[in-house]
Amino acid sequence: MNSIRIANVVVTPVAFHDPPLLNAVGVHEPFALRSIIEVESDAGVTGLGESYGDAAHLDRLRRVGGALRGVDVFDTHQILATTQRVLGGVVGTDAHGLTGSINAAGTVLRTFSAFEVAALDIQGKLLGRPVSDLLGGAVRDRVPYSAYLFYKWDAHPDREPDQFGEALTPSEIVAQARWMLDTYGFRAIKLKGGVFEPAAEIEAVRELRRAFPDVPLRLDPNTAWSVATSIEVGAALEGVLEYLEDPTPGRTGMAAVARDVSMPLATNMCVVGFDDIPSAVDQRSVGVILSDHHYWGGLRKVQDLAAICDTFDLGLSMHSNSHLGISLAAMTHVAAAVPNLTYALDTHWPWKSEDVIVDTFTFDEGSLAVPTRPGLGVELDRDALARLHEQYLGCGVLERSDTRYMQSLHPSYDATLPRW
Amino acid sequence: MNSIRIANVVVTPVAFHDPPLLNAVGVHEPFALRSIIEVESDAGVTGLGESYGDAAHLDRLRRVGGALRGVDVFDTHQILATTQRVLGGVVGTDAHGLTGSINAAGTVLRTFSAFEVAALDIQGKLLGRPVSDLLGGAVRDRVPYSAYLFYKWDAHPDREPDQFGEALTPSEIVAQARWMLDTYGFRAIKLKGGVFEPAAEIEAVRELRRAFPDVPLRLDPNTAWSVATSIEVGAALEGVLEYLEDPTPGRTGMAAVARDVSMPLATNMCVVGFDDIPSAVDQRSVGVILSDHHYWGGLRKVQDLAAICDTFDLGLSMHSNSHLGISLAAMTHVAAAVPNLTYALDTHWPWKSEDVIVDTFTFDEGSLAVPTRPGLGVELDRDALARLHEQYLGCGVLERSDTRYMQSLHPSYDATLPRW
Repeated sequence: MNSIRIANVVVTPVAFHDPPLLNAVGVHEPFALRSIIEVESDAGVTGLGESYGDAAHLDRLRRVGGALRGVDVFDTHQILATTQRVLGGVVGTDAHGLTGSINAAGTVLRTFSAFEVAALDIQGKLLGRPVSDLLGGAVRDRVPYSAYLFYKWDAHPDREPDQFGEALTPSEIVAQARWMLDTYGFRAIKLKGGVFEPAAEIEAVRELRRAFPDVPLRLDPNTAWSVATSIEVGAALEGVLEYLEDPTPGRTGMAAVARDVSMPLATNMCVVGFDDIPSAVDQRSVGVILSDHHYWGGLRKVQDLAAICDTFDLGLSMHSNSHLGISLAAMTHVAAAVPNLTYALDTHWPWKSEDVIVDTFTFDEGSLAVPTRPGLGVELDRDALARLHEQYLGCGVLERSDTRYMQSLHPSYDATLPRW
Repeated sequence: MNSIRIANVVVTPVAFHDPPLLNAVGVHEPFALRSIIEVESDAGVTGLGESYGDAAHLDRLRRVGGALRGVDVFDTHQILATTQRVLGGVVGTDAHGLTGSINAAGTVLRTFSAFEVAALDIQGKLLGRPVSDLLGGAVRDRVPYSAYLFYKWDAHPDREPDQFGEALTPSEIVAQARWMLDTYGFRAIKLKGGVFEPAAEIEAVRELRRAFPDVPLRLDPNTAWSVATSIEVGAALEGVLEYLEDPTPGRTGMAAVARDVSMPLATNMCVVGFDDIPSAVDQRSVGVILSDHHYWGGLRKVQDLAAICDTFDLGLSMHSNSHLGISLAAMTHVAAAVPNLTYALDTHWPWKSEDVIVDTFTFDEGSLAVPTRPGLGVELDRDALARLHEQYLGCGVLERSDTRYMQSLHPSYDATLPRW
């Protein structure tokens, strides 16, 4: 096979309906944004990627995409080097505030990621092998996901109630869990917390434990608590949680909590890049790191992270933002090829009804079969892509900001964390 | 492409002439042993690997090789799992005593490595792409190696003098360096020390510095020195060495030395597996880790090690044992695909005149062009393989032991380290 070079890159922003899911810094807007990346090669084979859809990120994707023409699709190191060259020292922001601070290296990695996935998709299609085979092979043929519960309103203001219903009380959270487990078969549950005062969320977790005695439970307040409050919650939920995710801000604060609670602490906020790991290891800030190929820098860098976690006796799980089917395929391939990714993965999947791919995924007992078709194993639905792009153009959202949306509804809302 | 499965594995031990190279535990025997691994796939494409040739290791390679039939060549995770299953808790030994202690995990990895390389060779050949492309692509088109100097006798006892001559004094070491730089163009020099008392080796390094003012210099006494002696040597060679390799045994001893010398310490003895890394990081034992795909577990695990070194601000270099052209190809591919492998690699290459491959490598200015042919880019020379196998059968060496050989010549030789 001669060189197969990138001939063109198309970045298409899309928007899909998103329910009013509550978190520590606000509430999901009526539309979630994503970008769909098509990397066309001179062999006539196109690869797919999916990433964030915020305007500044779209600009970076387009600038890098334009510079990638002529790069060999097997040379992902060159794709990374090109991304670094184009972006220089640019530091992106993360307006939704839920994945920690972003530096220049992180900005490069979250831009590169979409192209790396698309390049691997092309490689797999050219070779007739699934992407997991490019990562050393699938060590499991199914990848388990967790039920991702949210406190939520019954409707976005001035809109019709959604199909999911209100969830503001422990019993409503249990009902949401029951629906999600009945529908998808999930065998692990994560509750997005940091919304109500800790006593209410402790009660919700206890009700979940009573309703589902054997299902691992996680709680993620997105650094809504002080160190002291985190330790109190940890004591109250001793023996109940599989892990407690990001109770308090910063690696030093997390380390202080970790010393005084019995369950592992997990993070996708205080360790979000390779630079963050040495201090987290040194301080013993966390027991579990949540990977996410979108900001760790692609599938192979998730494998790098996995090797680090394995070496330093850290657990490995996977974080999710609202996403579509291309990302789900990529998440499933890399999770299949990482032996020590043993926690059920997070996914926002149940909260959306639209997609850009043909033949969407079906969960069985909470897990997905690892695609065995060449590449990522997903095919773009061009009509759906056009529809969701039109929706993007009309939706009025250009940068996700859960806080700004909440403040538009409740002007006195204060997103300062920790809150309790 | 459908599944491409391993159909047969052939392990052929070979022996090649080796000069009487001295080190801290003895002297190289007249023959060096290697194993040549041929992995035949049901697609008719065969992959090559090369590993150690000691009898117990050959036995492990053959046992695992027999169990690999039917495994997909893209499923290197399955190859590793099979290796683990077959070897169970077996702990191999390292009779030459120069690469630290080996545990069960290390025994698995040094057996797996040869099969991983062969599987990647097959993958590359099937895809028509060089192995470096399976590792993310070459970030450099040439890989620099270092001149590896040895104290040596002019001949093995009772044999004719070899072409390399005696090197027992500083001026003879300088002459050896001059020959090696003139012949191969190397731009870095490593002296294997631990042979003579430290003052003599300090003098040899100083003579090298005078003779080659601009060439980075390394000294590797293989833990021949106490902590105190190591610190004295470090002081004597301040500003002269690029790094000082394994001056003293153990991560704690190395940490004590590292605190009191100005140059980085490097190791291929106190950090030889992933399990060794956390304590080395915690204690700041070393500044540079020498990779070696033969015992770190293959090319992708060298990339894992590279990610760890990059994350924890450790330098990365590469260790060598006496080897043939298949290993040189594998070393060159992985070094090309690891951005932070910036030190010139060790190689014993100049010390041998035989090989098992057609079209052997040519150094230019001390570096090798990264092969661009499919797979590893090397072809087995069957006549040479048969010849070196015959040589193995007749040479009388079954397990490398530099100490045993030295003691057969000098019965009072004591290999206990540290010696000074």
